[in-house]
Amino acid sequence: MSTALFEYYQSNRERHLEGLLQLLRIPSISTLPENKPDIRRAAEFLANDLGAMGMKNVEIIEGKENQHPLVFAEWLEAPGKPTLLIYGHYDVQPADPLEEWLSPPFEPTIRNQNIYARGAVDDKGQVYLLCKALEGFFKTEGKLPINVKVLLEGEEEVGGEHIDEYVAAHPDRLKADAALVCDTEMFAPGLPTLTTGLRGLVYTELEARAAAHDLHSGMYGGAAPNPMQALAEMINKLKGPDGKILIPGFYKRVKKPTAQELASWKKLPFNEKKFMKHEIGATALVGEKGFSVLERLWSRPTLEVHGFRGGFTGEGAKTVIPAVSTAKISMRLVPDMNPKEIFRLYSAYVKKITPKGIRTSVRLLSSAPASVVDTGCRWIAASAEAMEQVFKKKTLYMRSGGSIPIVGTFQRCLKIPSVMMGFGLPDDNLHAPNEKFHIPNFYRGIEAVGKYLELLGK
Amino acid sequence: MSTALFEYYQSNRERHLEGLLQLLRIPSISTLPENKPDIRRAAEFLANDLGAMGMKNVEIIEGKENQHPLVFAEWLEAPGKPTLLIYGHYDVQPADPLEEWLSPPFEPTIRNQNIYARGAVDDKGQVYLLCKALEGFFKTEGKLPINVKVLLEGEEEVGGEHIDEYVAAHPDRLKADAALVCDTEMFAPGLPTLTTGLRGLVYTELEARAAAHDLHSGMYGGAAPNPMQALAEMINKLKGPDGKILIPGFYKRVKKPTAQELASWKKLPFNEKKFMKHEIGATALVGEKGFSVLERLWSRPTLEVHGFRGGFTGEGAKTVIPAVSTAKISMRLVPDMNPKEIFRLYSAYVKKITPKGIRTSVRLLSSAPASVVDTGCRWIAASAEAMEQVFKKKTLYMRSGGSIPIVGTFQRCLKIPSVMMGFGLPDDNLHAPNEKFHIPNFYRGIEAVGKYLELLGK
Repeated sequence: MSTALFEYYQSNRERHLEGLLQLLRIPSISTLPENKPDIRRAAEFLANDLGAMGMKNVEIIEGKENQHPLVFAEWLEAPGKPTLLIYGHYDVQPADPLEEWLSPPFEPTIRNQNIYARGAVDDKGQVYLLCKALEGFFKTEGKLPINVKVLLEGEEEVGGEHIDEYVAAHPDRLKADAALVCDTEMFAPGLPTLTTGLRGLVYTELEARAAAHDLHSGMYGGAAPNPMQALAEMINKLKGPDGKILIPGFYKRVKKPTAQELASWKKLPFNEKKFMKHEIGATALVGEKGFSVLERLWSRPTLEVHGFRGGFTGEGAKTVIPAVSTAKISMRLVPDMNPKEIFRLYSAYVKKITPKGIRTSVRLLSSAPASVVDTGCRWIAASAEAMEQVFKKKTLYMRSGGSIPIVGTFQRCLKIPSVMMGFGLPDDNLHAPNEKFHIPNFYRGIEAVGKYLELLGK
Repeated sequence: MSTALFEYYQSNRERHLEGLLQLLRIPSISTLPENKPDIRRAAEFLANDLGAMGMKNVEIIEGKENQHPLVFAEWLEAPGKPTLLIYGHYDVQPADPLEEWLSPPFEPTIRNQNIYARGAVDDKGQVYLLCKALEGFFKTEGKLPINVKVLLEGEEEVGGEHIDEYVAAHPDRLKADAALVCDTEMFAPGLPTLTTGLRGLVYTELEARAAAHDLHSGMYGGAAPNPMQALAEMINKLKGPDGKILIPGFYKRVKKPTAQELASWKKLPFNEKKFMKHEIGATALVGEKGFSVLERLWSRPTLEVHGFRGGFTGEGAKTVIPAVSTAKISMRLVPDMNPKEIFRLYSAYVKKITPKGIRTSVRLLSSAPASVVDTGCRWIAASAEAMEQVFKKKTLYMRSGGSIPIVGTFQRCLKIPSVMMGFGLPDDNLHAPNEKFHIPNFYRGIEAVGKYLELLGK
């Protein structure tokens, strides 16, 4: 990193922290109607900041009446250099239960090198460090080393409808070579890690119908088909007790992680016993034999039952054989499984295993393909190097078993990979009381993103 | 039947019907606090009627503050003759949805030889016919042919707590040789049938716990145990797809119906296809091979799942692996299965089939043994003959797959069998709008009960 840039980041730490505290004081809770003015204040705060530092075409993009605005900005004066689309979100989760916070959620408080506030790490701290990384270039060199587009949303915690529609409708305006998504965490404190893959999802409702109306189990039990019994039977035929999914063709396109990724995962400080006992709190782990826990979580598809509708769920005893019952069943996908194909295979198999006397139907509630970035590509390589220089440790790769919808959106609509550089820590209490952001990670994040842009500009 | 008694029943039909209409006008809905005065009016109506005809020691028995009164009466002046305990209930179900009634539920209306009113068949019409049968003896002979105790309750539709406590506490006062329960229906119009057996019940909650808290299925799916998957697995191990219950020792004490009963069941006008299509509305029936539908419903034990608690049951998709889930599971028992033993076998088996990583616990919510009356005993024989003489057809035997709690209470506390003579019809709309009672069955009921008492007195 240029000495001037490094010195700028170092000598402005106090001012940067003060700016973040201001942003954190705005209760921009996206799900509560009463916080709508705060959502706008947060958007304006960031738009002003981006404009003041030198970004061009700064715009607060309005959506439909019930949508929250996007913040856009760009700087495209580096011809021949790559274009990076930078993403973050300025909305936050609600803060309740309020009584569990040690300091008020919207009065950011510093204790033990951490800022405690709702949104500290998810995602205002990380959005703000992106801004400050850019600011450093404008202040020291008057320009950015590459072309940059910034797109921030205010609905990440409530489904991100607006950004989804906007990205789909404006591929030209958002055209870029890669995206930088700053909304994840590191595997362990002090350990630079990059998330290079996310699982996809096929989430379904499986409905089983038997009789025309609810039946009394005394009068009809023994002859009437029971849709809950049928669902239990079918779930057992969908996944065996060994964790193997029994849908024919399900594993056909499953791609193994690269040797580099597998090697990296083995180096991660993962303690299976601690994970089982303290993180999950169970007496045993389950899943496919022959795969490590991290492989099972990151690179193997799974099938889970989330709940059953129908029947009697109150206190006490009701002897009903319900006419209809629905199970919520999802499958996590890995590269290169195709959600459409998986849903088709699943639906056909469900039909095949439907017991006598039962009529089933399946409904797709949501789906997304898995995404993975080639760990050998320049976007990841530069990011790994930037992290390594700042954290003074070799960067390791990891994946996430969940999905980050925006990564799928960028992939689908803009055909670009996303680099997920995140500076959160596993104990940052996301979505929970006493959310925090480790202040050294805020500073290192600014430097790492600055370094990343510099490397991409070379 | 004596000519005088027969003529009394015949010539008083209009008056008896008028009395029933009066009783039906009282909205004695036991579950609604605002109908508490009506409950009392109904109790007083019947107590007055029993006193006026000549029954002795008529008493309205108060319970705890939130309980409805019992009506008791006795006549014990037939030394050497048997004592019959006559049971019925004067409370009714709520009438809603009101808009579906063709005539107001508490303004009894006669159409096509039926009285339409809430409680017409369940159970006021049947209680009142018991009273009128007794009345005939007092009016024609000045005495009853046997000793009789009458015990009517006002809480049958809300659990019958008061009568349960009372019977348990007063076995001497209620001492009798048999009970007559008039709260059931005939198998088909015009066909005299006696219910000679009821299944018992063991109703449980099976709780499965996995992690210490709910988990995200993306982050943890593939390694974290899922209690809903575990319950599905266990339910499959409790009952096979062929309807066979797989709990070791479960069938050990199952007693076959007598040859007489089986022969009787074969004569019942039961149409399997009609039952499947019109009564149940399913595309197939299920259950154990080698047993007819009526055997599966009446003389074979079953196991049913009624519902699952826990997990996500709302609209849409939530990717949760719940920490805990509970299934409501019940077993219907037949003679001579012992509920305590069955619960013990079930609990032990559940423990054995609990999957890795899951902690299960079972809770007994309610239990009752099956009950069966020997079709050869004098109580049934006389009842069958009485029905036969009145309906001019051979009386057939049937059972019910459900349970009638009072029968179990009488068996347990008084050690007496219950004769279930019922005059309802399968389409009488019990608990539904447009409940009705077929007027010819009201008259035949009076005669059949009169004949029954006469036969017992011989």
